[in-house]
Amino acid sequence: MNILHMNLGADSYDIVIERGALQKAGEYLDLDRKVLVLTDDGVPKQYAQTVAAQAKDGFVFTVPQGEDSKSIPQFSMILSDMLKRGFSRKDAVVAVGGGVVGDLAGFVASAYMRGIDFYNIPTTVLSQVDSSIGGKTAVNLDGVKNIVGAFYQPKKVLVDLDLLDTLDDRLVSEGLAEALKMGLTSDEKLFELFEKGNIKESMDEIILRSLMVKKAVVEQDEKEQGLRRILNFGHTIGHGIESCGGLYHGECVAVGMIPMVSDELRPRLIGILVNLRLPSSVNVNPDEIYEAMTHDKKGEGDYVTVTTVPRPGEFEMNRVRFEDLYPMIQMITK
Amino acid sequence: MNILHMNLGADSYDIVIERGALQKAGEYLDLDRKVLVLTDDGVPKQYAQTVAAQAKDGFVFTVPQGEDSKSIPQFSMILSDMLKRGFSRKDAVVAVGGGVVGDLAGFVASAYMRGIDFYNIPTTVLSQVDSSIGGKTAVNLDGVKNIVGAFYQPKKVLVDLDLLDTLDDRLVSEGLAEALKMGLTSDEKLFELFEKGNIKESMDEIILRSLMVKKAVVEQDEKEQGLRRILNFGHTIGHGIESCGGLYHGECVAVGMIPMVSDELRPRLIGILVNLRLPSSVNVNPDEIYEAMTHDKKGEGDYVTVTTVPRPGEFEMNRVRFEDLYPMIQMITK
Repeated sequence: MNILHMNLGADSYDIVIERGALQKAGEYLDLDRKVLVLTDDGVPKQYAQTVAAQAKDGFVFTVPQGEDSKSIPQFSMILSDMLKRGFSRKDAVVAVGGGVVGDLAGFVASAYMRGIDFYNIPTTVLSQVDSSIGGKTAVNLDGVKNIVGAFYQPKKVLVDLDLLDTLDDRLVSEGLAEALKMGLTSDEKLFELFEKGNIKESMDEIILRSLMVKKAVVEQDEKEQGLRRILNFGHTIGHGIESCGGLYHGECVAVGMIPMVSDELRPRLIGILVNLRLPSSVNVNPDEIYEAMTHDKKGEGDYVTVTTVPRPGEFEMNRVRFEDLYPMIQMITK
Repeated sequence: MNILHMNLGADSYDIVIERGALQKAGEYLDLDRKVLVLTDDGVPKQYAQTVAAQAKDGFVFTVPQGEDSKSIPQFSMILSDMLKRGFSRKDAVVAVGGGVVGDLAGFVASAYMRGIDFYNIPTTVLSQVDSSIGGKTAVNLDGVKNIVGAFYQPKKVLVDLDLLDTLDDRLVSEGLAEALKMGLTSDEKLFELFEKGNIKESMDEIILRSLMVKKAVVEQDEKEQGLRRILNFGHTIGHGIESCGGLYHGECVAVGMIPMVSDELRPRLIGILVNLRLPSSVNVNPDEIYEAMTHDKKGEGDYVTVTTVPRPGEFEMNRVRFEDLYPMIQMITK
């Protein structure tokens, strides 16, 4: 078992990394109260039930799998359910699922009575290495992702790698793309683990090292004023690809990283992507990706801040003209 | 002009108290950006327009007057409007109105892109002395008040007493009930200003002293863990009365304070209420008030924490059995 402590002043919390932690969630989390366990119908039912069964008063609330559940009407329905069940300020919400469930559950917990305890038990690689920690919660609105939400830290995060056993390989790989992202910008050793191959063998170390990178970044920049942008490495073009549909988030990030690394590093990165069965290009018109990015650029005007990686474990942040991204998009479109 | 500085660490801000501040809002607030000015149709139109006209890109959004505007659908509509207008993280929301507008605008600002700058320009006595500062934002859900929201501090509050000139006397008096509440629990001099009569003459001092009480309480207990409950003095029974309809919030608080003061103090309190033309009893069946309180008690179980006032400027906090409130309700029902 490893415990990482997130140092965020009054909002500090522990990340417990342990195979089998789900079975004894009640030892790590205060479940001696009303507990809403939020999950989605793509997560094995027994995961949420295992947590609810350990609570004094546990209720499972299941939303449909997918981004569409990150909506204000869904947010409102969950809050209504808690109200109906008489949840008080002293009760708690637990997320058992991937990024969608975590983002939604966190926003619900932040808003119910202006904030009640929130725990996260991520069940995908992507959420275990990235989205479950850092306190970014949100829902989507009018087709724009994560536009409504809160910075709200969990009270504890349980990372149980056994939960990944039920995932199909494609989902594992898309999550590993985010771990690879952390290695590229901030941890050469993590990058080298990917290069060595044998991913399954290195899984525990990959997830631990990724969490250590994320922890360090969030501690330095909780509210995403600056440094935290390195977590968006690969995401600028990645989000544009994602808007065009058909690919998982991590797959889009994988492709989106390619133009953002140095020419020397690029073949090494592509080698890793091939080994992970992640795409290294997309069959989409570059104009379509560019248009989607324009819609999604969150009002920075004609400029955008991008992170680039010259060598594994090092990054540069640059403000570039938005249109300068166009040739980069061409690099990864067929 | 008076400036009170709220000391809340990274969330600190100034409260500027000045007659005529609205006209020069742009000197105090950074309006050199996109600014959504939220108001309601009960507030004189020129107030919001005056602020919007001082902004680089100012938009007035008007909601219907009344509690019904504090809803998740209304919250969602305002966010959609901001999205459509291309608001970025660097833009701002200004509330120009009473408590409803402030609570709604604050929650919107807290959630848009996980938080953008929020300013409050309260236009009622109640919001000037109480609800505009302290960072409690919320909307209602399923008939329960303030059940969904955030603790989110404004970047600045402008208190312009000239804005009160257009209020009718009943609205002024209900706001003064909250100021009287602050005097009772925390400031004997403020209580004595009420006892002296001549309220109009003392208005500037009443508002300043009330804000000083509120500031001190919020600084000690930003997230309402303990001390801040003294601001709920009179509210336990008051909310029960309010749920029965027909009276303003401050009027209900006025009545709700009566059973919560000592027998010696009670006649003095009632004398002040009569002078302010505030009610000192209600013509409602006590059972109805009791039922409403049961529904509203926010899950504290069979007990509730109430604040009582033995002498002006002093308070006691006690956890009492819920049913012990019943004879207190009988005291103020006809």
